[in-house]
Amino acid sequence: MALLFYSPDDDPERWRKALARHLADLDFRVWPGGLGEAAGIEFALVWRPPPGMLDGLPNLKAVFSLGAGVEHIADPPPGVPVVRLVDPVLTRGMTEYVSARVLHYFREFPLYADSQRRGEWRKRPFRQAAECRVGVMGQGVLGGDAAAALAAMGFSVAGWSRTQKRLDGIEGFHGESGLIPFLGRTDILVCLLPLTPETEDIVNARTLEALPRGAYLINAARGGHVDEEALLAALESGRLAGATLDVFKTEPLPADHPFWRASSLTITPHIASLTVPASAAAEITANIARIRDGREPLHAVDPARGY
Amino acid sequence: MALLFYSPDDDPERWRKALARHLADLDFRVWPGGLGEAAGIEFALVWRPPPGMLDGLPNLKAVFSLGAGVEHIADPPPGVPVVRLVDPVLTRGMTEYVSARVLHYFREFPLYADSQRRGEWRKRPFRQAAECRVGVMGQGVLGGDAAAALAAMGFSVAGWSRTQKRLDGIEGFHGESGLIPFLGRTDILVCLLPLTPETEDIVNARTLEALPRGAYLINAARGGHVDEEALLAALESGRLAGATLDVFKTEPLPADHPFWRASSLTITPHIASLTVPASAAAEITANIARIRDGREPLHAVDPARGY
Repeated sequence: MALLFYSPDDDPERWRKALARHLADLDFRVWPGGLGEAAGIEFALVWRPPPGMLDGLPNLKAVFSLGAGVEHIADPPPGVPVVRLVDPVLTRGMTEYVSARVLHYFREFPLYADSQRRGEWRKRPFRQAAECRVGVMGQGVLGGDAAAALAAMGFSVAGWSRTQKRLDGIEGFHGESGLIPFLGRTDILVCLLPLTPETEDIVNARTLEALPRGAYLINAARGGHVDEEALLAALESGRLAGATLDVFKTEPLPADHPFWRASSLTITPHIASLTVPASAAAEITANIARIRDGREPLHAVDPARGY
Repeated sequence: MALLFYSPDDDPERWRKALARHLADLDFRVWPGGLGEAAGIEFALVWRPPPGMLDGLPNLKAVFSLGAGVEHIADPPPGVPVVRLVDPVLTRGMTEYVSARVLHYFREFPLYADSQRRGEWRKRPFRQAAECRVGVMGQGVLGGDAAAALAAMGFSVAGWSRTQKRLDGIEGFHGESGLIPFLGRTDILVCLLPLTPETEDIVNARTLEALPRGAYLINAARGGHVDEEALLAALESGRLAGATLDVFKTEPLPADHPFWRASSLTITPHIASLTVPASAAAEITANIARIRDGREPLHAVDPARGY
């Protein structure tokens, strides 16, 4: 069974070893040098495949993404399913990152750091988590897990998604008509959406204006979700009290980008979570086994909605 | 039923209202002006009572602390039980504070902040929570809750206590002989101990030296647990990569104290958690009812161990 691998960011050898533990007959080929005979390739496992890379593979049965997002696979061959990666380690890492930042903002560590710089001993009023309204955009595997973890900590959590979802203990909002009411009740906004034409620049001047004054933003999804100028303006005006961004329209973030020095903005270099081969290989190979059994893969992208 | 109240930090009226909701016959007296006839006083609810305040109350049945600690009650009348406050809101606040700082250190936000200041896009290796060894000193109500929450997040959690405790999913260490082995396996050390003569300055040059190089410290218990000079030296030498202190030997922390400007030291003004009258009054009055029924109060201090 031949699988074609490509990623500018990952070590092919780690993936080969991890997959080989589950697939005895694995023929692991690394694009472009190791392509070999195209007709033998049944699966592709890719991150940011270059244009045309997936063309001319007549027997391709599925394209697996190396991450939770699939928007980086720009031109999948028609009729071949594209499969999102659902990996418990990836999910847990994302929930940790989001929890770390929600707790940091909720417990006002940035404000206490300001006091410390001034040498000022000043207690702020104690609040309980139930008084803090967290809003999670995206209620799929990642957004659902983060929302559940935050609800378990006692936060008042709402979720927003394209279509109606019902998650235990989460107040549900959906669709265009639910977006502004959702934002109006959100003190800390978390973005874990898939990137699609509908969600591009969803954090923009209009939506930021719908948040209560002094809200916080955490974006761990894609840089394409945020209108960068609108975000800078919202930080400057105080509409946002702070923001944490793990993802950017251009990565690495260019050296002269104003985000590096914007006040109350925390930047991390796309490290919120990571696909770990040892854990993800089990999920991918289980899905390969399904396809070889003639079943539909789990977590296949719906081309109409784009995720 | 007369209860004598004293706290330099709390509003008596909030406590009177909260207690009165549970005690129809409450005679709430605020020391010193409202003392009234001493013989009628059956209970005292105090924070840092001045010396002698609790003397001369012939019918005192119990002294309740307004916090989880009781070391601030320096001279309880002989034979009168002193009762620690166990309050679910207080416990949750402490676990939130500890979780916020553990996640912050584990996910390396201070190091990413350094990178951001330098305008440097640099990913650090992704680690899973199971690879991070958290050690919680104190395995009572507060330490046990924090340890359980951190274990649920996937951290490798150990607990250290004076006597042997067995908590689910927590590696147990105890006593003097268990302390150094406990510290040797601890990447992030959390102090939630009661302050007693045995635990005073427990974080000192010897114990800090037992931690792996580059460990972190979080102290949310009492300032008396930490040898301040040893801590500063450990931060300077790199033995500790960072520390968070919520409590200090002198509070407010004096303006000229070197802690304010020590590098990698985060200071908060004793806000990790708080006793909330509405929630705590239910616990206190349930304990009063027990005593009036002739039973022993819950969470009474053992004078021999001091907590």
